[in-house]
Amino acid sequence: MAELPLAPVKRVIKNAGADRVSDDAVEAMRDLLEDRAEDLAKEAKQYANHADRKTVKKEDVRAAK
Amino acid sequence: MAELPLAPVKRVIKNAGADRVSDDAVEAMRDLLEDRAEDLAKEAKQYANHADRKTVKKEDVRAAK
Repeated sequence: MAELPLAPVKRVIKNAGADRVSDDAVEAMRDLLEDRAEDLAKEAKQYANHADRKTVKKEDVRAAK
Repeated sequence: MAELPLAPVKRVIKNAGADRVSDDAVEAMRDLLEDRAEDLAKEAKQYANHADRKTVKKEDVRAAK
């Protein structure tokens, strides 16, 4: 949990046009992204398993999208 | 673009149970997350503007969810 670093998440928010961003907004965004990544990763793994592979590949992530 | 570093994204995928992950799978996941972050950030900024604030706060990110 909490693998994604905050500084790049903050940059993404600022790049989207925000003048200022509170620290807890950055943390909230990080948590949302990480939850989404976990869901996608589990689904991607399931696709890889279904294709009899142990390696999760790009097409598995795309399929899980 | 491409603000999020790959190593923590890879850890999130491995934490979700993947034994092995290809490099392009990690990049695909990073791109998906970054697109999602951009969409959420734009919507969060709109919520902040709507509340007459220049600072994007946690409640704006939550509202955009």
